[in-house]
Amino acid sequence: MTQIYNFSAGPAMMPKAVLEQAQAELLNWQNQGTSVMEVSHRGKYFSELAAQSDKDFRELYHIPDNYKVLFLQGGARGQFAAIPMNLIGKKGKALYLNSGHWSATAAKEARNFCEIDEINITETDANGLISVVRTDFSDIAEQYDYVHYCTNETISGVEIKEIPNVGNAVLVADMSSNILSGEIDISQFGLIYAGAQKNLGPAGITIVIVREDLIGHARQATPSIWNYETQANADSMINTPPTFAWYLCALVFKHLLKEGGVKAVEARNLKKAELLYQYLDSSTFYHNYIAKPNRSVMNVTFTTNNDELNAKFVAEATQAGLQALKGHKVLGGMRASIYNAMPIEGVEALIAFMDKFAKENN
Amino acid sequence: MTQIYNFSAGPAMMPKAVLEQAQAELLNWQNQGTSVMEVSHRGKYFSELAAQSDKDFRELYHIPDNYKVLFLQGGARGQFAAIPMNLIGKKGKALYLNSGHWSATAAKEARNFCEIDEINITETDANGLISVVRTDFSDIAEQYDYVHYCTNETISGVEIKEIPNVGNAVLVADMSSNILSGEIDISQFGLIYAGAQKNLGPAGITIVIVREDLIGHARQATPSIWNYETQANADSMINTPPTFAWYLCALVFKHLLKEGGVKAVEARNLKKAELLYQYLDSSTFYHNYIAKPNRSVMNVTFTTNNDELNAKFVAEATQAGLQALKGHKVLGGMRASIYNAMPIEGVEALIAFMDKFAKENN
Repeated sequence: MTQIYNFSAGPAMMPKAVLEQAQAELLNWQNQGTSVMEVSHRGKYFSELAAQSDKDFRELYHIPDNYKVLFLQGGARGQFAAIPMNLIGKKGKALYLNSGHWSATAAKEARNFCEIDEINITETDANGLISVVRTDFSDIAEQYDYVHYCTNETISGVEIKEIPNVGNAVLVADMSSNILSGEIDISQFGLIYAGAQKNLGPAGITIVIVREDLIGHARQATPSIWNYETQANADSMINTPPTFAWYLCALVFKHLLKEGGVKAVEARNLKKAELLYQYLDSSTFYHNYIAKPNRSVMNVTFTTNNDELNAKFVAEATQAGLQALKGHKVLGGMRASIYNAMPIEGVEALIAFMDKFAKENN
Repeated sequence: MTQIYNFSAGPAMMPKAVLEQAQAELLNWQNQGTSVMEVSHRGKYFSELAAQSDKDFRELYHIPDNYKVLFLQGGARGQFAAIPMNLIGKKGKALYLNSGHWSATAAKEARNFCEIDEINITETDANGLISVVRTDFSDIAEQYDYVHYCTNETISGVEIKEIPNVGNAVLVADMSSNILSGEIDISQFGLIYAGAQKNLGPAGITIVIVREDLIGHARQATPSIWNYETQANADSMINTPPTFAWYLCALVFKHLLKEGGVKAVEARNLKKAELLYQYLDSSTFYHNYIAKPNRSVMNVTFTTNNDELNAKFVAEATQAGLQALKGHKVLGGMRASIYNAMPIEGVEALIAFMDKFAKENN
């Protein structure tokens, strides 16, 4: 069989070792003669898994003691609603930084629950190059209960690498597409959240890292499964959690620790992105339209500037075992999502294919 | 290895054939060289799976054309909040029928979102026997936007077999613990919902069957992942759905169709429950405290009326491969959950063990 590399933007590639372990013990977990998905979340074995996953995740991401980690349902889009429900307080409004599709979608959802102000923080120049033009909001941030942004826009491939300056205000970050991809200073954030299906595990589980002083202020009309206080007090088990998805996240955490932790993973991620962007910059056939300081380490977008050629590229790449390279429908072109689980060999295979395709079609 | 029978109340036993198929294709689904959990929900293969699962579920449960089926996140407890958000309208209040723990919990959550009235519909007699005493609400139901009840109380083992009479009012049913366990007349309901982790699949996916005229009336402050109109228009993919859990539900539907559909499954379920209740009625050692017309086909509760003996029973049963028989902490005693996936042999093994234990400890 052809070696397959899966560049899907999400649900995305998972570590092969994790899937192999899940496969081996799918019908007999912890030697109990049952699947992990068939046992009570309140039983001994699953309780131990949940506690260990919290410990491993904290170790991996260097999470300070005054933060809680919640394992929830509903995806990042669920949190788009849950965040204003939990965090809007005395100031009565929030500031949303718009850097593309996902940050705009978060703002749109939040408007159903509170007053928000929205600032566009990117600019597109005459050549179509997108750059982030503002990251200092310290002059206005404290008017708001929180300031929300998206660290990495999966569709365009724009990453905000500098943490926005919000003074003493509460900074909230959607890190769905780059959580655990590199080291960050958690203490600069009030809340970080991420759907699992890119860097953490399968779709169906959402991680929230929330500073303790922000817990306990939810409005009455907050669903209990998203009330941070209720879930923190219940160890994320106010109702039956998505146990199999949680189990896979726990295996991914163990796998990343074994690989050397986030520091080692980050070095590999930077290498992968560097290889691909260097190739793109050396090519006159392919183009990337993101300013260098804002190029995503996770989602590399490129185009031949010709829709027919792009379609041909995607079709031939698929035949060659390089899957899911079609760009998001709102942007077109191509996109290579190279999350933690993508090995360097996958990026090398992609570049080799791109080079061959360019020579054949130039 | 000892033959294991898993009587967990949920997450519960799944059909072995389903788990074996999932195991076999875990790293290579549809011969694509990737796992089902690594591919886009908007891709060809997953879209086909989603459409087929809708078709199979409709066929299995005889769902009329004027109902939509939604595959959502957040569990039944998420729907406890979503239902008032979507269904409270001109009348401004709902009626909740209280038959035990879960119907009471649904009412408590709903109070955060609307005005509700609550009626206790069970009585406990001098001997501790619980029975359902009222199912006709046609005199008052039309004052309410909807009437909510729970068809089967998992903790106590009380099942409401007669569909409540609510006249022309909208009837909403939590069927988390007995969906697909027997044939029902869907047209008598406005909305049916169920967490998957008992009779449908793994934890992390929730099915909502909703009559089309009830869609489109959600309040502004409804999270989009739970807005029935938004999700119906998006084929339950307004955001990334829990794809692996959905895939397993799809396999369970195929499995049930192959087994002869819900009619055949119901006959086997009735036989299993009959065997166990007949044994309980013939015993002076074990006791069940549910009135015969309200005994649950899915969750059979019993006790020796002696906490020490109960604990010994659970410990020795576990040793004998009969797992998760401990009753819920709020009730104590024992509970055998015998959902669709439990074979008759499991119930026979349990009765044989019960009989042996009674003789040894009488």
